[in-house]
Amino acid sequence: RNRTCGNRIRQRDAVLTKPPGSLGRLEELALWLGEWQGTERPTLDKVQITIFAGNHGVVQRGVSPWPSEVTCQMVANFEHGGAAINQLARNAEANLNVVCLQNLQATEDLSQTAAMTEDGFLSAVSDGYRAVSKDADLFCAGEMGIGNTTPAAALCAALLGGSGSDWAGRGTGLDDKGVQLKAAVIDDALTLHGSAMSDPLEVARCLGGYELAAIMGSVLAARHHGIPVLLDGFVCTAAMLPLVKIAPEVLDHTRLSHCSAEAGHRKLAKALALVPLLDFGLRLGEASGAALAIPLLRGAIACHNGMATFAEAAVSQKSDSPTE
Amino acid sequence: RNRTCGNRIRQRDAVLTKPPGSLGRLEELALWLGEWQGTERPTLDKVQITIFAGNHGVVQRGVSPWPSEVTCQMVANFEHGGAAINQLARNAEANLNVVCLQNLQATEDLSQTAAMTEDGFLSAVSDGYRAVSKDADLFCAGEMGIGNTTPAAALCAALLGGSGSDWAGRGTGLDDKGVQLKAAVIDDALTLHGSAMSDPLEVARCLGGYELAAIMGSVLAARHHGIPVLLDGFVCTAAMLPLVKIAPEVLDHTRLSHCSAEAGHRKLAKALALVPLLDFGLRLGEASGAALAIPLLRGAIACHNGMATFAEAAVSQKSDSPTE
Repeated sequence: RNRTCGNRIRQRDAVLTKPPGSLGRLEELALWLGEWQGTERPTLDKVQITIFAGNHGVVQRGVSPWPSEVTCQMVANFEHGGAAINQLARNAEANLNVVCLQNLQATEDLSQTAAMTEDGFLSAVSDGYRAVSKDADLFCAGEMGIGNTTPAAALCAALLGGSGSDWAGRGTGLDDKGVQLKAAVIDDALTLHGSAMSDPLEVARCLGGYELAAIMGSVLAARHHGIPVLLDGFVCTAAMLPLVKIAPEVLDHTRLSHCSAEAGHRKLAKALALVPLLDFGLRLGEASGAALAIPLLRGAIACHNGMATFAEAAVSQKSDSPTE
Repeated sequence: RNRTCGNRIRQRDAVLTKPPGSLGRLEELALWLGEWQGTERPTLDKVQITIFAGNHGVVQRGVSPWPSEVTCQMVANFEHGGAAINQLARNAEANLNVVCLQNLQATEDLSQTAAMTEDGFLSAVSDGYRAVSKDADLFCAGEMGIGNTTPAAALCAALLGGSGSDWAGRGTGLDDKGVQLKAAVIDDALTLHGSAMSDPLEVARCLGGYELAAIMGSVLAARHHGIPVLLDGFVCTAAMLPLVKIAPEVLDHTRLSHCSAEAGHRKLAKALALVPLLDFGLRLGEASGAALAIPLLRGAIACHNGMATFAEAAVSQKSDSPTE
């Protein structure tokens, strides 16, 4: 994070042909991108979107109305260009790739045992770390995994407090009965793993999932390479919770792209003091919210990099005491 | 508004490879665009952004920290490509043009007399009407006019109730003393024009401004041509109030692009039941919020037009009673 660049960005912003502060959040976004990219003129020419895909043993308990096969089928849909994220990535002129964790073999059922072995967990974190291209200007983390709002909600309950019913939502379309079952499954898991709850990474291993672990790894890699990150929705944000518990500043190089319609996301974002860029009621995952927000960042840097200064445009400046 | 197209859009949306409703507001936006364009496959190839520029006699009362010359200087800045809107229009791949009303001659001081003559008012409405290209896919209305948050706030007070202090904001950067003065000027105007308040168009003539009148005309023209409209910020929304009072459905073909940081905008949007697409704290005008939102609409139609159906992608569908 380059604060010298940040100061120069602030200095330039102050003389652009607009009232100070009048571009609101666009000004803050240009500053954020420039500080983390280490440049006075941020760029977004190489934007990487990665979908981490994984499966979940807990689906056997009936926590999703969709069968686990859909994870693999949707990966094929991504590869053939037919999913929402393909259209949104093209709209955002971003590169899209998909990383299947553990060949889409499911985790264990987190309500019966630890979701992952230590090797499996670390391997997924490492897969995520290695997925980030060092020369990207921006990294967008997304996920696909039938059933993965259950581990996401379980992580929230374990690390922020509350029970299954506080964090379980409809996911991809559960009815009321399904949500009750999901909450009960989460409560079973919290009881089972109670003794592990003091170590956030152990919580991630016991209650999380491969694609959630990979998201952690990828966000760390992006930080290491000086790449700002757009987080996607509920699962993506929840995946970062274990690291936030260890080091709250771990999200400084990230922005939350949107607030999901999934029940727990607004509460989670508030707990992490993240202000979403968009509030569009999306609840699809696949990095769809992150991809949708990319052009907003491009607008921010277009203004910062391209606007004329007052001197260049010969525009009169504001009077300090206009009413006297 | 073509409801047959709307029904076909709904039918297609239901079989795209995503859980029903999971694209949230993107689904609603594709439907809105298709219904007003009269097509099952909405397009955004020809997007027109028009900035209506005008000057205001009331500036002589000290309601803006910037001199009136800045309106003309900023028009030159638009023409040379140096303003925020030039960058945002390019980012959105939209065409930008500027219409100067009455050669930028100021209205009368609305706190002393009617802002416009009947001829001047109707001429501005007509200029706005003729500014809209019949073959545009989307029209974005914006404005530039030093001092124009004063007529905007006056329209709100006259047509929605309240006094100057309920609607006067900082505009381009007034201090507390300036805001108090602005509120007092608006109260003077409300008292002066009290007898005209029963006729919304007479309110528009006495308290408005040329560029506000032109916005009304342009939004009507867009509707006549079947062109959906993105409204910009506080001044743009307030400009439509007189027509809303006459025919509340006049905004059905519009969406509000953003909620401005200008004090009255959130209240005004709520009164008109408009839900902004963005909440970025912008307060610049120039159609900047509308331009910023264009790529979100492109994302909506990209998903609708480009996604594969469940049958095409061979993805399994949701079970109706997963938990039984």
